[in-house]
Amino acid sequence: MEKKWFQTPEWSWNALESRKEFVHQWVQPLKDEGDSPDMILFGAPLSRSSISVSGASLYPNEFRKIWKNFATYNLDEDIDLSKFNVADAGDVAMHTTNILESHSRIQAAAAYLSEKYPERPLCIIGGDHSITACAVRGIKDANPEEKIGILQLDTHLDVRNPADLGPANGTPIRQLLDGGIVKGDNVYNIGLHGYFNASPLVDYAKEHRIQMVTLKNARKKGVPVAVNDALDSLSEKVDRIYVTVDMDVLDIGQAPGVPASTPGGMTTFELFDSLIEIGKREQVRYIDFVCLDPTKDSPVAETVKTGVYAWLQFVTGRAMALGK
Amino acid sequence: MEKKWFQTPEWSWNALESRKEFVHQWVQPLKDEGDSPDMILFGAPLSRSSISVSGASLYPNEFRKIWKNFATYNLDEDIDLSKFNVADAGDVAMHTTNILESHSRIQAAAAYLSEKYPERPLCIIGGDHSITACAVRGIKDANPEEKIGILQLDTHLDVRNPADLGPANGTPIRQLLDGGIVKGDNVYNIGLHGYFNASPLVDYAKEHRIQMVTLKNARKKGVPVAVNDALDSLSEKVDRIYVTVDMDVLDIGQAPGVPASTPGGMTTFELFDSLIEIGKREQVRYIDFVCLDPTKDSPVAETVKTGVYAWLQFVTGRAMALGK
Amino acid sequence: MEKKWFQTPEWSWNALESRKEFVHQWVQPLKDEGDSPDMILFGAPLSRSSISVSGASLYPNEFRKIWKNFATYNLDEDIDLSKFNVADAGDVAMHTTNILESHSRIQAAAAYLSEKYPERPLCIIGGDHSITACAVRGIKDANPEEKIGILQLDTHLDVRNPADLGPANGTPIRQLLDGGIVKGDNVYNIGLHGYFNASPLVDYAKEHRIQMVTLKNARKKGVPVAVNDALDSLSEKVDRIYVTVDMDVLDIGQAPGVPASTPGGMTTFELFDSLIEIGKREQVRYIDFVCLDPTKDSPVAETVKTGVYAWLQFVTGRAMALGK
Amino acid sequence: MEKKWFQTPEWSWNALESRKEFVHQWVQPLKDEGDSPDMILFGAPLSRSSISVSGASLYPNEFRKIWKNFATYNLDEDIDLSKFNVADAGDVAMHTTNILESHSRIQAAAAYLSEKYPERPLCIIGGDHSITACAVRGIKDANPEEKIGILQLDTHLDVRNPADLGPANGTPIRQLLDGGIVKGDNVYNIGLHGYFNASPLVDYAKEHRIQMVTLKNARKKGVPVAVNDALDSLSEKVDRIYVTVDMDVLDIGQAPGVPASTPGGMTTFELFDSLIEIGKREQVRYIDFVCLDPTKDSPVAETVKTGVYAWLQFVTGRAMALGK
Amino acid sequence: MEKKWFQTPEWSWNALESRKEFVHQWVQPLKDEGDSPDMILFGAPLSRSSISVSGASLYPNEFRKIWKNFATYNLDEDIDLSKFNVADAGDVAMHTTNILESHSRIQAAAAYLSEKYPERPLCIIGGDHSITACAVRGIKDANPEEKIGILQLDTHLDVRNPADLGPANGTPIRQLLDGGIVKGDNVYNIGLHGYFNASPLVDYAKEHRIQMVTLKNARKKGVPVAVNDALDSLSEKVDRIYVTVDMDVLDIGQAPGVPASTPGGMTTFELFDSLIEIGKREQVRYIDFVCLDPTKDSPVAETVKTGVYAWLQFVTGRAMALGK
Amino acid sequence: MEKKWFQTPEWSWNALESRKEFVHQWVQPLKDEGDSPDMILFGAPLSRSSISVSGASLYPNEFRKIWKNFATYNLDEDIDLSKFNVADAGDVAMHTTNILESHSRIQAAAAYLSEKYPERPLCIIGGDHSITACAVRGIKDANPEEKIGILQLDTHLDVRNPADLGPANGTPIRQLLDGGIVKGDNVYNIGLHGYFNASPLVDYAKEHRIQMVTLKNARKKGVPVAVNDALDSLSEKVDRIYVTVDMDVLDIGQAPGVPASTPGGMTTFELFDSLIEIGKREQVRYIDFVCLDPTKDSPVAETVKTGVYAWLQFVTGRAMALGK
Repeated sequence: MEKKWFQTPEWSWNALESRKEFVHQWVQPLKDEGDSPDMILFGAPLSRSSISVSGASLYPNEFRKIWKNFATYNLDEDIDLSKFNVADAGDVAMHTTNILESHSRIQAAAAYLSEKYPERPLCIIGGDHSITACAVRGIKDANPEEKIGILQLDTHLDVRNPADLGPANGTPIRQLLDGGIVKGDNVYNIGLHGYFNASPLVDYAKEHRIQMVTLKNARKKGVPVAVNDALDSLSEKVDRIYVTVDMDVLDIGQAPGVPASTPGGMTTFELFDSLIEIGKREQVRYIDFVCLDPTKDSPVAETVKTGVYAWLQFVTGRAMALGK
Repeated sequence: MEKKWFQTPEWSWNALESRKEFVHQWVQPLKDEGDSPDMILFGAPLSRSSISVSGASLYPNEFRKIWKNFATYNLDEDIDLSKFNVADAGDVAMHTTNILESHSRIQAAAAYLSEKYPERPLCIIGGDHSITACAVRGIKDANPEEKIGILQLDTHLDVRNPADLGPANGTPIRQLLDGGIVKGDNVYNIGLHGYFNASPLVDYAKEHRIQMVTLKNARKKGVPVAVNDALDSLSEKVDRIYVTVDMDVLDIGQAPGVPASTPGGMTTFELFDSLIEIGKREQVRYIDFVCLDPTKDSPVAETVKTGVYAWLQFVTGRAMALGK
Repeated sequence: MEKKWFQTPEWSWNALESRKEFVHQWVQPLKDEGDSPDMILFGAPLSRSSISVSGASLYPNEFRKIWKNFATYNLDEDIDLSKFNVADAGDVAMHTTNILESHSRIQAAAAYLSEKYPERPLCIIGGDHSITACAVRGIKDANPEEKIGILQLDTHLDVRNPADLGPANGTPIRQLLDGGIVKGDNVYNIGLHGYFNASPLVDYAKEHRIQMVTLKNARKKGVPVAVNDALDSLSEKVDRIYVTVDMDVLDIGQAPGVPASTPGGMTTFELFDSLIEIGKREQVRYIDFVCLDPTKDSPVAETVKTGVYAWLQFVTGRAMALGK
Repeated sequence: MEKKWFQTPEWSWNALESRKEFVHQWVQPLKDEGDSPDMILFGAPLSRSSISVSGASLYPNEFRKIWKNFATYNLDEDIDLSKFNVADAGDVAMHTTNILESHSRIQAAAAYLSEKYPERPLCIIGGDHSITACAVRGIKDANPEEKIGILQLDTHLDVRNPADLGPANGTPIRQLLDGGIVKGDNVYNIGLHGYFNASPLVDYAKEHRIQMVTLKNARKKGVPVAVNDALDSLSEKVDRIYVTVDMDVLDIGQAPGVPASTPGGMTTFELFDSLIEIGKREQVRYIDFVCLDPTKDSPVAETVKTGVYAWLQFVTGRAMALGK
Repeated sequence: MEKKWFQTPEWSWNALESRKEFVHQWVQPLKDEGDSPDMILFGAPLSRSSISVSGASLYPNEFRKIWKNFATYNLDEDIDLSKFNVADAGDVAMHTTNILESHSRIQAAAAYLSEKYPERPLCIIGGDHSITACAVRGIKDANPEEKIGILQLDTHLDVRNPADLGPANGTPIRQLLDGGIVKGDNVYNIGLHGYFNASPLVDYAKEHRIQMVTLKNARKKGVPVAVNDALDSLSEKVDRIYVTVDMDVLDIGQAPGVPASTPGGMTTFELFDSLIEIGKREQVRYIDFVCLDPTKDSPVAETVKTGVYAWLQFVTGRAMALGK
Repeated sequence: MEKKWFQTPEWSWNALESRKEFVHQWVQPLKDEGDSPDMILFGAPLSRSSISVSGASLYPNEFRKIWKNFATYNLDEDIDLSKFNVADAGDVAMHTTNILESHSRIQAAAAYLSEKYPERPLCIIGGDHSITACAVRGIKDANPEEKIGILQLDTHLDVRNPADLGPANGTPIRQLLDGGIVKGDNVYNIGLHGYFNASPLVDYAKEHRIQMVTLKNARKKGVPVAVNDALDSLSEKVDRIYVTVDMDVLDIGQAPGVPASTPGGMTTFELFDSLIEIGKREQVRYIDFVCLDPTKDSPVAETVKTGVYAWLQFVTGRAMALGK
């Protein structure tokens, strides 16, 4: 059944090679049977659902091409990731013109993997932010009894009204709240700052008790500490935590490849340190990285490289927690 | 009713200004009542339907911004266009995530204007090539008894299968042939060349007797002559001629802002001269310009300027024919 | 009379729209009569006076186009700016080839608005740094009895000799000191660093007792604190404070659109925090932002966005001080 | 006296080197005494007088840097230019903020060189098109009794009204006609095409009997033939011919570094062949190349290289005529 | 043995796919045994030997990536290339720091393939122009008794002195002449023009009777005709013809990705038509394409696409000659 | 003898000018006799030895061109560098195709200057990182009895195996360790972070007791403090300290012109502060700056300017130490 959804990414596996010194040698394709990976990865290459023109659909492929430049050894933490097994399920196959159908497939893919590998962290590489609503719905389909909380690193609330736009990239949190999938006070947003959320959206967020931690306040204690505080709170209230990293949370100076990034945003240093903390938390079962548009990136691929680095920080945190 | 579809473009009318020296002073908004323009223009800002990522949805707006740089006097033909009245109906309002709904609105808009102004040439600024199928269907809706022929300036046949892709930008001609709206031998394609149509598509075109005039053959007599020959043939067979200019017909060296443009393509000189001829033909009642993506254009906006120039050549031809 | 100077900016007002969620809906054109705005804005689109080639004359227009991307709600401070009324007087009309005439018009415009709205902060969007000398002279014309102090955020001293260059962009502070408009010890420069002021200029500054606060020293206590200290000192010595923000004070990595920006400069975070403090000060009656050249900006308009953000921080500070 | 005007260009002479294989080894600085060059060159680095922002002031320097890439042997004509002596007088020193003063200096420099070397062709490297009016006035100052004709290769008429703009770059031909320096029917413009001259300007040109040869008509016989025809006519009517090459005559696809270049323009092939013809004519005593803005050029310096090539074609024509 | 030299290119074979609609589906890897391809291709990814910095070493890989965009059906000639078998031997493995060693490997690879497949045309994708000397030497090694002639499409003579530079990219023709591998009057250069060969090099060429056909002269009869004339002459004098296409022969406006391309160069139309003629000639046994640097290409990969198109024209010509 | 190696840089000396306000007026050419500079500078323009394509060979020239933008007065430290004499020996002349020969010349040049000016700090402007091995060997040749220690600011260990690559840019530290020139525990690397050194290289470094100070650990105390600590340790163990600054140590957001720069790297602020400390140390006798590729830099030359700034910080530190 899953054959219907997944398509093999362009990069070629290096199964015959025993070395796992670089990421492309280390990550292995997900096998249907007998596989027991420590972590699973898949791509959701959809950005037709973006309000503005976006090439974020190209990110999963660029992500997998540029990871050749990354070694599996983390020097800061002195840890060798090659012993931690990551399996790549490929990309969910998208329909060319039917966005709802594409959304359904992402939901089904997330449900399928969440059910089949209930204990493994699932990493989703977007795509625009609309995929988060699909993924969380899929996870809820597979785990209807469990409460899901969301930690959102984002410059925006993403609570625009789907009645106006359909399930576009500005709406995922509202879709989940209005749909009863997640409760507002189980959503923590860290990264809000400046002038990028119109007042009716802030009003909606306040009404639904979304936990808004502005970047200014997070910086007072340190962003990684604020992230840990949010995870502490969430851990008491929910069964599973889904982390969504909208790359537009980053400062525009460090994220040219995210069209919605803004001045005054999070630094990559703050994001990287936070992701180690997030990775260490067992309750974090899902993470996505969205809205990175490689067609807008700088000539040296600064943002795509930052995206791979960010994901590896999450992996490092998890590997540290597992003592691998 | 049409309020539902059209939205005012961003540029501001200069109604109070009596001078019509430049295009932005000359083109006037279409009024609902009592207006009798010589030509009508509207935008179809849709490119979510494009197979590859496209910003062609931004073209209608860029088209209207850059026309400030164009005077209404054509020096080559020594003709003053300011006496020829062009009305701008604005852009068809697009749905953010429902592509079929957006297609329906373009079809309805084309039907509406085609019915209300039956004698006026209608110019459509795309958007990707999927809009051509919508527009032709709309015109057929308004004129069910008349035979429509198509002159297509294009590097590609655009006969990919909608069963695979939905009504995406590679499929419009096939949509119209399979839907019985237009007959294959009433489609003339001038601009085909090189290695950009896979053999099954060529087979389809041959089976349906699409009239393929390769660029190599067109150049033997001169592209404008080949265009005139095609228009002569069409004039004998159909009631109305729809011209669709896929800007990817241009050579890649002169059209950086059309991602699908290729080496070996038509020169702007050939296109400009051809459009004068096309404009002169009374039977040509509709024309669209598609697939120009301003986000890919050169820093000096070479391709957007070429797009405005191309449209003005069509207007010049028509004005010459009318003795204006 | 002022008609002679001001020309309407290209962007269109949204008077009919009652919502003020985004900046372009909120800022209103300055009316001649019966208007009582909380703050006034005008553009000084001149950069022919720049020593090196500069497109800073295009900034006022780009500033007004990109502010559509900014909401009127400031999340960090939880404040709604839409209740604070900002009026835009448009741009001062520049002469094409007579720079002295253009300078005179800026001076007259500043005098006119300073006289007509004595209690309202006046924001000037440059243009190159030569406009600062014009504006301060205009303010002095309107308020001959009052002492003016200057807080300058700048990498450079801008005390080059007008005898060599005429009133070019490297000379405004020297023009004002030599002209007796402002005293040297009432000029505080924060942002000086590195190797960007030749020794004779430093000698001039020392002779005239310009208060030089290097970035290194400012950082020891925090740039916003250093700014507050300078404002404290100035408040005791002068009646009115004019703040001039040369955007080249920013680090080159965060300000690609300012050709004179340098390594080792101020971060946007430091600038943004400082501008909240500056905005809070009632004594600050005038502020300009100069030397931002949109033609050099990154493809994602990083610097222009930073310019709008910076201005909004000033507005936020003032709105906070007024309890709006 | 001339010291006041000329400043040494940045490039360094290779006087010690006896080889003249490349242009930078071949062109020699103009000496005050005892020099008898075959041709003289100087730069007029002014573009503050341009209506839109322009970096054409940087062209003389870039021109002299990139000529290192050009050999002194012309293969097409099998001619060795190294025996033809070209002297470089340097750049006219410009005032930073006083445009009229800069214009006066260009006029004086042209008068000085025209008087001192009456038999030598004078090449002027702009700068924007305003410098043409200065240069022609200077030549008239030095040769008050002689009639001057102009061959203009340009997309524009350049007859905008100095009463509105001052002596800006859109006005030089009108300055000369209104000033009685040149008569309208002694001005031949080849290169006009499309939609780039508003009707009042065309009316002015017709009234003053400017000889307008559209590109469409020139191409019917071949641009170099049309150029020769114009030179034949001029030769009968005037004593000296001044050729002004506004690089915006070139098609936008081949001249990205000329902001005012347009679609439908002259090809470089047509320009290069024409310049050989122009060079061959003894009556052509002056030539300028204007409006090339190196800051807008492509990364491979396509337009600056085209500018050097164009100038060398003129030199080749002259060397052929002299049998050198 | 050849294992030592060849390394598999990055692109993946589609052996399982029976369709050959696009180039990446059609070209197959060269197998060691039992293979009988109609044509062989290999890459020589070396550009450390270039005098100026060059990324031409990256071209073979980019060439193979972008060919996915090309169908195997040629519309101009109405011919289906999928029946013509092309085998890809991969890239010759280069040494990182020993250029002479890399050159030896290219020579050995050319000798090996030339010997093993004596009847098959061999296509070499460079790399800089130094590889031509290696390849021709290798072919001579394998066929010591046969006379080799060269048709060179190039802006330059490439006869700089290896005594000064070593075997760099400006020297290949001189290496072959001085080494007695090829005689000067068996070298035809078509494409020379303008100011890009210093006089001592022209003197050398004349002394050695290199057949110089300037672009100006070639255009008088048409470049493809001039090419045919050269091939006719060569056919009478030599046994085997090696064609070397230095992509810098193209006009700079159509070849931004070739740093040494110049104004006044060959158009892509002239090159494409010529390559059909070259392909038709059975005596042409070898062809290389050199000096295309993908790191300098335009954002839409104009030049790399032109390179693939050029190669396919050669294939088309050969397929036409074989009646495939 | 040294004439064989050094060639004059392109920039011209301003010996006649008595002012030393800017760097190009201040740095003087090294004279063969009677010169007693405080510091010596030379360029090593080699990057053919780089594993990936690199234009770092162009950096010495760009470095000398852009230093015109830097004054000789350091405002942060209130120190006038113009009294400190820096002499420029020019660039070591490189062989076009023989990399080993080029390496030998760099070694000989370093030996020559190290011997002739034993007390003067020597600054080397690369080039890629392979030049460090040459320079250190040259210094050892001149000072065979003395122990050399290395402080390396770098993201990478640069201990790849020359047996695989030859003396390429990834190998210099290993060359020196394996060659017995420097001992592993006398190499301090500050700047290591993230995922950019494969585990076998880390193993090698551990085996050889290279002192690895990760950026994370350095930041805990402050990078300049960590640098001082390393210099303290080295001072006790060695006679002379060689500092090598691989510019890829910088964060990718601040160093677009260093292709190997990475996310998570050192900030320019940290580097600049560290270089003041390094400059103050008398034991630091040699410093190089490598791997900066101007062809990849941003349009505003951000990285090249950062490179000049970095070098001036070193000079400032030394001038402070000498009380100049």
